Amino acid sequence: MAITDAQRLELAEAKAGRSETLRPTVPALEAMLFEPIPVLDHGFVRVIDYMGDDGAVVQAARVSYGRGTKAVTEDRGLIRYLMRHWHSTPFEMCEIKFHVKLPIFVARQWIRHRMANVNEYSARYSLMDREFYIPAPEQLAAQSVVNRQGRGAVLDGADAAHVLDLLRRDANQTYDHYEDMLNEAPDGTPRDPARQGLARELARMNLTLNTYTQWYWKADLHNLLGFLRLRADSHAQYEIRVYAEAMMGVVEAWVPAVAEAFRDYRLGAVTFSAQMLDITRRLLAGEAVQQRGSGLSPREWRELMQTLGREA
Amino acid sequence: MAITDAQRLELAEAKAGRSETLRPTVPALEAMLFEPIPVLDHGFVRVIDYMGDDGAVVQAARVSYGRGTKAVTEDRGLIRYLMRHWHSTPFEMCEIKFHVKLPIFVARQWIRHRMANVNEYSARYSLMDREFYIPAPEQLAAQSVVNRQGRGAVLDGADAAHVLDLLRRDANQTYDHYEDMLNEAPDGTPRDPARQGLARELARMNLTLNTYTQWYWKADLHNLLGFLRLRADSHAQYEIRVYAEAMMGVVEAWVPAVAEAFRDYRLGAVTFSAQMLDITRRLLAGEAVQQRGSGLSPREWRELMQTLGREA
Amino acid sequence: MAITDAQRLELAEAKAGRSETLRPTVPALEAMLFEPIPVLDHGFVRVIDYMGDDGAVVQAARVSYGRGTKAVTEDRGLIRYLMRHWHSTPFEMCEIKFHVKLPIFVARQWIRHRMANVNEYSARYSLMDREFYIPAPEQLAAQSVVNRQGRGAVLDGADAAHVLDLLRRDANQTYDHYEDMLNEAPDGTPRDPARQGLARELARMNLTLNTYTQWYWKADLHNLLGFLRLRADSHAQYEIRVYAEAMMGVVEAWVPAVAEAFRDYRLGAVTFSAQMLDITRRLLAGEAVQQRGSGLSPREWRELMQTLGREA
Amino acid sequence: MAITDAQRLELAEAKAGRSETLRPTVPALEAMLFEPIPVLDHGFVRVIDYMGDDGAVVQAARVSYGRGTKAVTEDRGLIRYLMRHWHSTPFEMCEIKFHVKLPIFVARQWIRHRMANVNEYSARYSLMDREFYIPAPEQLAAQSVVNRQGRGAVLDGADAAHVLDLLRRDANQTYDHYEDMLNEAPDGTPRDPARQGLARELARMNLTLNTYTQWYWKADLHNLLGFLRLRADSHAQYEIRVYAEAMMGVVEAWVPAVAEAFRDYRLGAVTFSAQMLDITRRLLAGEAVQQRGSGLSPREWRELMQTLGREA
Repeated sequence: MAITDAQRLELAEAKAGRSETLRPTVPALEAMLFEPIPVLDHGFVRVIDYMGDDGAVVQAARVSYGRGTKAVTEDRGLIRYLMRHWHSTPFEMCEIKFHVKLPIFVARQWIRHRMANVNEYSARYSLMDREFYIPAPEQLAAQSVVNRQGRGAVLDGADAAHVLDLLRRDANQTYDHYEDMLNEAPDGTPRDPARQGLARELARMNLTLNTYTQWYWKADLHNLLGFLRLRADSHAQYEIRVYAEAMMGVVEAWVPAVAEAFRDYRLGAVTFSAQMLDITRRLLAGEAVQQRGSGLSPREWRELMQTLGREA
Repeated sequence: MAITDAQRLELAEAKAGRSETLRPTVPALEAMLFEPIPVLDHGFVRVIDYMGDDGAVVQAARVSYGRGTKAVTEDRGLIRYLMRHWHSTPFEMCEIKFHVKLPIFVARQWIRHRMANVNEYSARYSLMDREFYIPAPEQLAAQSVVNRQGRGAVLDGADAAHVLDLLRRDANQTYDHYEDMLNEAPDGTPRDPARQGLARELARMNLTLNTYTQWYWKADLHNLLGFLRLRADSHAQYEIRVYAEAMMGVVEAWVPAVAEAFRDYRLGAVTFSAQMLDITRRLLAGEAVQQRGSGLSPREWRELMQTLGREA
Repeated sequence: MAITDAQRLELAEAKAGRSETLRPTVPALEAMLFEPIPVLDHGFVRVIDYMGDDGAVVQAARVSYGRGTKAVTEDRGLIRYLMRHWHSTPFEMCEIKFHVKLPIFVARQWIRHRMANVNEYSARYSLMDREFYIPAPEQLAAQSVVNRQGRGAVLDGADAAHVLDLLRRDANQTYDHYEDMLNEAPDGTPRDPARQGLARELARMNLTLNTYTQWYWKADLHNLLGFLRLRADSHAQYEIRVYAEAMMGVVEAWVPAVAEAFRDYRLGAVTFSAQMLDITRRLLAGEAVQQRGSGLSPREWRELMQTLGREA
Repeated sequence: MAITDAQRLELAEAKAGRSETLRPTVPALEAMLFEPIPVLDHGFVRVIDYMGDDGAVVQAARVSYGRGTKAVTEDRGLIRYLMRHWHSTPFEMCEIKFHVKLPIFVARQWIRHRMANVNEYSARYSLMDREFYIPAPEQLAAQSVVNRQGRGAVLDGADAAHVLDLLRRDANQTYDHYEDMLNEAPDGTPRDPARQGLARELARMNLTLNTYTQWYWKADLHNLLGFLRLRADSHAQYEIRVYAEAMMGVVEAWVPAVAEAFRDYRLGAVTFSAQMLDITRRLLAGEAVQQRGSGLSPREWRELMQTLGREA
């Protein structure tokens, strides 16, 4: 587990530091606080802090509806209603902060979700650790031939071994040279007193994209769900999907009613265009609809038939 | 105090609901939780929830600086450094949620701060209360003659009485007619069974801008400070400034080191342009600089001399 | 048409000011530039400036896909693909700026769309005009009994006349008193020299929520479509929906391929939850599914049957 | 110049495509459109599109001030006033879109400016080019000893040569192995038919952080100035500062009055805390103030004396 000694100390102190609070508290999430959930070979996700619970979503929805909400008496039903009808602001009333260790190429995808607060470890200021993501052999897949942005079959043993050897060798060599350029001993003195060390902000450029970085990442529940919807999806790259799945487990402990509604109305949901809906209605009415003349392209038709569980 | 019975009940329940938590907890803020701080004649601000403390700002700054922060050992000094050098992301690691009751014309200014989460009471869905902001006589000021966007001298007694009479009369009359158009008794049945009531989403348009509304408003500490910098400023309209001042008191209880740095480097600070700095240096060196030839407009010169405590 | 003389002059100047440009230009939108599209009784929407076209969306998508896009040769197909699969960033590459005149209660809904740039007419600084939204009689509807946030049947003649009379009378009276409190002649001198005028920032609070305001509103195409999806929807309040419909007409002139994809995949689309999809598949397979035992609440079942064109 | 043939073709077509427009047009910026401005060894910045000009800032400010702006008749003065008093929304009325080629480690800093629209070249979908940033020898500097986040003296010849050799060797070797893992000929067929190629989304992780990427980056003028304020600053890393400086040149061609005000009130400006201002006033009044007892830390005192042009 790639958590530093300093962080381990901090963790121990934090877990010793129980306080009383009047704030909404979620025992199932308290039990997970600070503990790293392992992801990939050296990464992790851990919850550092949180605000709100299922009740905070309901509380916000009820201020909007004011006196008028007598009719909706049940919290779970209200949360499902909000999710089904794409209400967003009540979900913004909950907030969560994670500490994440992740490869740089994953961080580059992740950071595109802009509506979050981030403090990343600075390689201008500090030294990077010798830690790289090396995929497990069963994750080494060929380029997909049907999807330019995906993976196909897993590489066979010899091809996989070749790739792993290259990845390990290059990561270690570039890190060796990173250290060589820095010329800096752990105590900050030069390794080789006859040479000048290169500035950290420059030397870092020699590292490969599978080097691990870490950050604090904080978002409201609405934006977290937006992240999970895209990144816990089967089309997301495996290396970010495993982080999303670990975070989905956190959401289930934290806000179980929201998590259930999210699974039903987002993760497992499909959107039908006006044309697709019309075709579905006609099929239900017993009409024999064909792709030709349906208004759908062959690709859209194929997608629809798969969705409806029919032979295309 | 314009807090409903339902909210009072909620408050009592919340205060009874102590839990244990591992999260950072601020006793001085816990003592303020849920309690309305009165603002204006019927408004209030109260803290509903919070995340983080001074330590969370430091923690985030230290992950950025990683191993390199051994040098900066003192938290207060680090927070002052971050504030002085306009770092923003560490302050985003704290979050706070308020429940606010405020006049609509104040809400219209407030909502322009976009980087916040808001759930407002819906007048499409629910009935508005008969509550209006009527200024205290000492707040009834004439239009400023030097500043088109400000107030001048306080109105004298007769003029003030005239204004107050108009404000009270119109607010009550438009509210009477709002109720008349709705034709709705408290139990939802028609007041006059012979007439149809107008939809709430339409009837509300007859209310005046001093009618009170309420919302949950949640922001991170960086954006909250941005709000306070503009709205706790002496140029802000009095009616929003009093809310900002109440919230500034909350910030002082919550994150005292951040509040102190904010007072020094933001609220009490002035920005000198390149030209203003050059003139200041020359004055310090004993040179007799005049507006003419200084590169400053007469207006800028006047502002600079006031800032430097000199006769213009 | 509630456009000022100054704006009319500006409009005439703008239309005289043809220039050559290398930027993407859309003749159909050029033909609409600056011209107010009337909305409600005194409002309008007009396009002030724009950036990009359908081609800019395609250009951005292709930089993402780089050399890999040889396969997708047709722009319309690519735009439909992006819309269908919820890609957002290519649509952010287009930008549009509107000048809008609208009642304050509509502005209060509209401003909740945060991802936009806004400059609103300031009633702290300037005088408001005597212009109010008074609904057409066929828009005066009763409160809906099935939907707490909607309208039911149109009021009959006598009830409508009563409402219109109240709205007109109160708007004019509160405006009269606004002027009285300001005590300001058009040339800025006091109307009654014996009295002090109230500051503008205070007097405005006496105006009703149907008073017209105006603003410049600028957004990227992705966020504009997000606005239209919610506000051109049949559940939106009529008074904001008519603005959205006017802007939808602008989008059709500006980016016709995007507008078509948006109509098909957003405006006319429905989202099926996992359970709803499963029921649809079983119905298509000939199974006799009932609400009881379906996993759907009676309300969700009713919504699904309506969507599928079946008797509930 | 690292612009592809396809882009060169697009550029030629774009420059041939003059149209007439009614939109505000800036001839000085039109002359720069599409042309790459070289930055670093293989990078560039080029303007793809823009919206608005100095006049658009003024137009937006005047709608806010409405009838009240008769007093401020001069556009340049109004723009300087807006900048001096930290008004932001009028500057949001202008928008610009750049196409940028830049090393990945620079892109990682740049993307932290969240309020922008970005479409980046996708290495999941497409092949990366064999292009790396190799610093010019005079940019190879030692780690600063006074500033943990900066550069000190330039490396001497032998040390620089050693660093350059490592950077070049590692970048080329990791790229060789990237190609080896992909096992993909330019026409998409396997190089070695006996081996499976690794998926692009995986192979990319072997590249070093000085590999070039490219993106479209679009922002409003307010956020662009925020970027330039931090990144055109002398404390910014050289490799991003040169991009900021190229973009500052664009701003000067595009909105000269805004650029001038920005230089005076932001780039060349300093902020004085309440304590620093008090000390400055006392020095001007002839008092002999010392660090001890001033309320400033030794570090802040040293910074202030430097700012005021005094011996510390």
